[in-house]
Amino acid sequence: MDQNQLVALVAQEVAKRLNAVPSDTNIAHSIHLGISNRHVHLCKGYLEILFGKGKELTKMKDLAQPGQYACEEKVIIIGPKGVIEGVRVLGPVRKQTQVEIAQSDSIKLGIKPPVRDSGDLKDSASLTLVGPKGAVTLNEGVIIAARHIHMHPSDAVYFGVSDGERVKVEVGTSRGAIYKDVLIRVSTNYKLEMHLDLDEANAVSAKNNDIVTIVK
Amino acid sequence: MDQNQLVALVAQEVAKRLNAVPSDTNIAHSIHLGISNRHVHLCKGYLEILFGKGKELTKMKDLAQPGQYACEEKVIIIGPKGVIEGVRVLGPVRKQTQVEIAQSDSIKLGIKPPVRDSGDLKDSASLTLVGPKGAVTLNEGVIIAARHIHMHPSDAVYFGVSDGERVKVEVGTSRGAIYKDVLIRVSTNYKLEMHLDLDEANAVSAKNNDIVTIVK
Repeated sequence: MDQNQLVALVAQEVAKRLNAVPSDTNIAHSIHLGISNRHVHLCKGYLEILFGKGKELTKMKDLAQPGQYACEEKVIIIGPKGVIEGVRVLGPVRKQTQVEIAQSDSIKLGIKPPVRDSGDLKDSASLTLVGPKGAVTLNEGVIIAARHIHMHPSDAVYFGVSDGERVKVEVGTSRGAIYKDVLIRVSTNYKLEMHLDLDEANAVSAKNNDIVTIVK
Repeated sequence: MDQNQLVALVAQEVAKRLNAVPSDTNIAHSIHLGISNRHVHLCKGYLEILFGKGKELTKMKDLAQPGQYACEEKVIIIGPKGVIEGVRVLGPVRKQTQVEIAQSDSIKLGIKPPVRDSGDLKDSASLTLVGPKGAVTLNEGVIIAARHIHMHPSDAVYFGVSDGERVKVEVGTSRGAIYKDVLIRVSTNYKLEMHLDLDEANAVSAKNNDIVTIVK
């Protein structure tokens, strides 16, 4: 048994003991790419302001991360210099509203959101959300999401990384790059997947489900 | 004298013997970034179709590369799925019309241009150009320009690279990356400068004049 096989076995054992192996656990530990277009996570209060009292989100399709889904609902986002229509809402509702856009979007809107990890919204950028029943102006909540990899603890053991660590990741397209500062996010709720935004995907001509590699 | 100083001296000497040292030769050999938005190089014939018989380009401002300039003239570019207005024409006129767009533009237009070095247009993508006096549909000429570094022969000596070579380049922003497959273009007409398109710049939050580094 070589070292890679040993590490894979240990990873499986850790996963079993955590009693949390998803049925589709990725034995090969291939990291597939998920490309995120601009989107909005809404809190219950703002969902009702934008779409009406008692409104519930309508699931359109499940996303790769368990429990997360794209909704039929869309909003308009407005900054001092521009408007972007048709921005998808993702479910389920969250405690705090979070808008994730790409740098190119921020230029069009005329705002300067920080590059942040999801949920880290203090003093982030502001914009106005408009839905069919109302509008709300956020004081904060707009970020450019830091590139990241979701993974299960068994994947973290396999790769020898831990939650919160930053790694380099090679995207091996014909027009490739090694992206630095890629956040590792570990949870038993996560499925192994790297998230890039549209700018990052377009810069390397990457497509959804392309396979990427952690570079040590 | 350490090795870096020696290499710099040799580079200066080579440049002198080529009798082609630009007045602003970059002694430090710092590679600054120039970010290219979508643009069009026109041949004389198409310039006249789009803007009228006898039309000459109107210089708006010089670009970093000697002899190259941005023009007052703009065109509309149209693909099967979309339209982009206000696309800048660069001068002087060229033998063959060439349209350089980013991957994000190609998605909006609904075309699939290849990633190519400037001038390598055989079997590249097509689109329609519209100006104030006429329109022309290109059979080929639309590319996504391969990321590249312009440099003087003295810079090439300094960096130990040669024309046509592909290198890795690190963009050291807070959201950095190492871009692979960066083409080296050497000419006594060139000033040291790396060109990225808007997608590539946005993916790493880079700005014009940021300094980048060749990684060996």
